[in-house]
Amino acid sequence: MVRQPPTAELVDRALERHPRAVARLISLVEADSPHLRAVARALAPHTGRARVIGLTGPPGVGKSTTTSALVSAYRARGQRVGVLAVDPSSPFSGGALLGDRVRMGEHAADPDVFIRSMATRGHLGGLAVATPQALRVLDAAGFDVVLVETVGVGQSEVDVVALADCAVVLLAPGMGDGVQAAKAGILEIADVFAVNKADRDGAEATVRELKHAISLGRREIRGPSWRTPVVKTIAARAEGITDLVDAIEAHQAWAGERGEFTARRLARARAEIESIAVRELRARLGELRGDLLDRFAAEVRSGTLDPYRAADDLIAVIAANDTNATIAGIHDK
Amino acid sequence: MVRQPPTAELVDRALERHPRAVARLISLVEADSPHLRAVARALAPHTGRARVIGLTGPPGVGKSTTTSALVSAYRARGQRVGVLAVDPSSPFSGGALLGDRVRMGEHAADPDVFIRSMATRGHLGGLAVATPQALRVLDAAGFDVVLVETVGVGQSEVDVVALADCAVVLLAPGMGDGVQAAKAGILEIADVFAVNKADRDGAEATVRELKHAISLGRREIRGPSWRTPVVKTIAARAEGITDLVDAIEAHQAWAGERGEFTARRLARARAEIESIAVRELRARLGELRGDLLDRFAAEVRSGTLDPYRAADDLIAVIAANDTNATIAGIHDK
Repeated sequence: MVRQPPTAELVDRALERHPRAVARLISLVEADSPHLRAVARALAPHTGRARVIGLTGPPGVGKSTTTSALVSAYRARGQRVGVLAVDPSSPFSGGALLGDRVRMGEHAADPDVFIRSMATRGHLGGLAVATPQALRVLDAAGFDVVLVETVGVGQSEVDVVALADCAVVLLAPGMGDGVQAAKAGILEIADVFAVNKADRDGAEATVRELKHAISLGRREIRGPSWRTPVVKTIAARAEGITDLVDAIEAHQAWAGERGEFTARRLARARAEIESIAVRELRARLGELRGDLLDRFAAEVRSGTLDPYRAADDLIAVIAANDTNATIAGIHDK
Repeated sequence: MVRQPPTAELVDRALERHPRAVARLISLVEADSPHLRAVARALAPHTGRARVIGLTGPPGVGKSTTTSALVSAYRARGQRVGVLAVDPSSPFSGGALLGDRVRMGEHAADPDVFIRSMATRGHLGGLAVATPQALRVLDAAGFDVVLVETVGVGQSEVDVVALADCAVVLLAPGMGDGVQAAKAGILEIADVFAVNKADRDGAEATVRELKHAISLGRREIRGPSWRTPVVKTIAARAEGITDLVDAIEAHQAWAGERGEFTARRLARARAEIESIAVRELRARLGELRGDLLDRFAAEVRSGTLDPYRAADDLIAVIAANDTNATIAGIHDK
């Protein structure tokens, strides 16, 4: 076993921008370490400076390539850039499929770029809790811009991007019905659209479709006065990336003026607190598993108890905050 | 406004298999109606009979077509079949994109088939709560088989299928990197694999790849002794569907013998209770929003409070179960 530095030292070194300390703190986040509370406390005063740009879209649309191109663009503007690539986890495939190796290639030698594929395994709101905590680490470590990339299908995955300071939704032309299905749920979170692979057939049609959808849906969309721009990119050749950055910056300027920036950050803090609280409450439910939850599950399965009543009873036990006494009480009923 | 029959009457009519009553109850589920508790209580004694077959896979793989072919196959065996198609929601697109109209075409005239696209809008575990409740409605209404179809990317979406009595994972050949990414997280839940569009180039390679993955990953996969079969289908021409049904039935026979069937149903009941309890707890958190959560969020945003501490304080308020008194207490601190 390699000896780990204590948490306080790790935090100090992360604040001094040591990449290994940053990496280790994010590993603590992934592992949901009991030290996270202390880490969060120590990081809190140093957070709130990074700009968070979310990037999402259906599989195959070119998210990693676009992310990499955005890293270069922000580096050229002198910004330190962190990247969190959130992949749906898979114990089967052994984790993130897109791999840091591929991503790192171009930026591996740059000390002002930090790229991390996060694997958030399993259920129970892992993604919702882990991503904001990893963001805090990068924020405290002085990254000016943090790009968060998720696959654009699935509630949790989309929610993460929806709460960024600017949410960029990527689409590509000619992907057919699959994309139609995948698009559900991601169109309405976009602050900026990018139609990537814009040299392919159907790019103009996709842009037109999007613009039409935007004009129909405006009242549903983020701000009352922000007209979501549609930018064409060919990320693999770095084409259109300047336009994309300009669109992101325009959105940030608008958001700053309108108070939208502050509102979004408050919403992010609310969601962050809430997801931690919900997971803590879930953990307390889980502690009842061996006994009460199993008993209730058997009754629900046999049809002698309905699940709402079972949930109410479980909550009563948690709220009583004296598990053993209350379980005994319910058993005696 | 159309007058709605009272809940009790609606339940009675659903138990008598009136499709409109079934549809209305599922609408109550989607809307998270306050009547759901009463509905769940009334349905409970009539549930536990339906077999639940989950179907998932990346966008574009042919899930709807396969579902429709499975409906025909089970109808030919004299079974009443319900279908729940769970699409990621979109206020923007106005709901399910695949549309009941298309799906209904073939089975529209058959009173023993009920097909429903569920829109579970927004966040907060909507999918995890709504899907099992809609299943209960179909179960109580006497459907022998219920097919649950979800898009196979995203934690919540995959979780729903993972808890079916039999989880069928669909793939298709030649979909490239997008599919690679989409596959993460769904391979390990499969009880049965179907490689659809098996007339396309690369079908054999996909089958080989899957079989190889299965042989490597067996210890990770569902049962210790179930060897996940890989079936080739061309759902659009109803080819291979008999093989697929045979594989599903073989899994059910194995699961019944091994006690896996009971274990899965208990796990489903546990997950169902837990998701309702978590949402109820979330609702209680939400009630604190106007005051305490907003205040905490502002402090977290400014870095004077860390989110774990904020979550602990929120939970203390909920557990105290006397919100006003405790908020006052915290304010006085």
